[in-house]
Amino acid sequence: MLSKNQIKFIRSLKKKKFRQANRLFLAEGVKVVDELISSSFKIHKIYGTASFQNTLKIDELQIITEKELKMISDFTNPNQVIGIFEIPEKKEPLNQGLTVALDDINDPGNLGTIIRLCDWFSVSQLICSTNTVDCFNPKVVQASMGSLTRVQINYVDLSAYLSEEKREIYGTFLDGENIYSSEHEMNSILVLGNEANGISERIEALVQRKLTIPQFGDQKQTESLNVATATAIFLSEFKR
Amino acid sequence: MLSKNQIKFIRSLKKKKFRQANRLFLAEGVKVVDELISSSFKIHKIYGTASFQNTLKIDELQIITEKELKMISDFTNPNQVIGIFEIPEKKEPLNQGLTVALDDINDPGNLGTIIRLCDWFSVSQLICSTNTVDCFNPKVVQASMGSLTRVQINYVDLSAYLSEEKREIYGTFLDGENIYSSEHEMNSILVLGNEANGISERIEALVQRKLTIPQFGDQKQTESLNVATATAIFLSEFKR
Repeated sequence: MLSKNQIKFIRSLKKKKFRQANRLFLAEGVKVVDELISSSFKIHKIYGTASFQNTLKIDELQIITEKELKMISDFTNPNQVIGIFEIPEKKEPLNQGLTVALDDINDPGNLGTIIRLCDWFSVSQLICSTNTVDCFNPKVVQASMGSLTRVQINYVDLSAYLSEEKREIYGTFLDGENIYSSEHEMNSILVLGNEANGISERIEALVQRKLTIPQFGDQKQTESLNVATATAIFLSEFKR
Repeated sequence: MLSKNQIKFIRSLKKKKFRQANRLFLAEGVKVVDELISSSFKIHKIYGTASFQNTLKIDELQIITEKELKMISDFTNPNQVIGIFEIPEKKEPLNQGLTVALDDINDPGNLGTIIRLCDWFSVSQLICSTNTVDCFNPKVVQASMGSLTRVQINYVDLSAYLSEEKREIYGTFLDGENIYSSEHEMNSILVLGNEANGISERIEALVQRKLTIPQFGDQKQTESLNVATATAIFLSEFKR
């Protein structure tokens, strides 16, 4: 049975402040929790209903009722399990190969999708500006579908970080070199900007080459592609 | 002032049944409504607050209060305007060039993103299986960001449609020819499958060539890409 204090504590982890104070984050649903259990991430506690089965023996498992799960879940139809995991120790950013850098991404779904794309395209380092949504936000964890455990993510002062970089810095803009006809250095940084405002002026000044995905046809009325969609196309083009 | 009946009628259009009975659909927010007003779609009614400004003179505009807008809006923070537009007359599907075909896409956000991608990459025809989410669902209209007005969309019995097609039929699978090293016929149909189950067996039997986006790196643990993300990569690769 869940105590009032347990419920309060679990719910508190939906907020960044409490995640950071406790160095813990939430994951929900069988698929994501199973991936995290099997990863190098450390388990703090698993709350599962009687129907939750995992092939591993989990000492931290507490069986709860469907009703209790509903009380701590963000889902309309909760899916068997919620886990609390430790936020891993910070590592130094990797400065080799292709790094993706995000300038103030706000939407958790977009960040989760970008993490999944980095995993798919074997981008081992993701750099986020300090104003980018927290990667341990439950909606990001959900959208990243376990890829969170396989991509190294660092939050930095993006302007200071880029100023010290020796690799080539690419930025994605609506006007720039056509991505399909330009050569790309694989040992480089690819910057993507905020959903509404794109790359900020401060960061634009540090970008060495501007790249763009050309629009096809005569109409040219679509304003822009969603940032996660654009990331998919850029990574595909870099890695193909 | 909005009458009770008006409010009830507007809200009813959130349901497919009532959209189809009335041949009307809802659009919300300044950007999307402005795009629809400027398009060939016919305006039925526009409900805007005093702050809503459009450069065109709109006879169908009714000024409402912020409070009334909240009553008919799906948004937590409604954005000035809700429009009701006529669902356009059905046209015969175009059978030239590249057609994207969807086998039971469920998520409105995914369909909206795919419509936006078709617009960006100048794919003029989108074919949806009858079980695909309705393209006039308010969340699809929202996510398509006005691209809905520039892409022709037909709902069909997908199996019957593909059986009669003379163009080459490609399908996207987890195992198939590497998209980056295979040649693509531009006069063709590209089939994408359901979020959870992929392309159904019945449709798979009609696919002539299976294509896949290869996964990079050694880990190969990411199960699959989101269908909208995969569409972005396939269309980019077809059109580049």
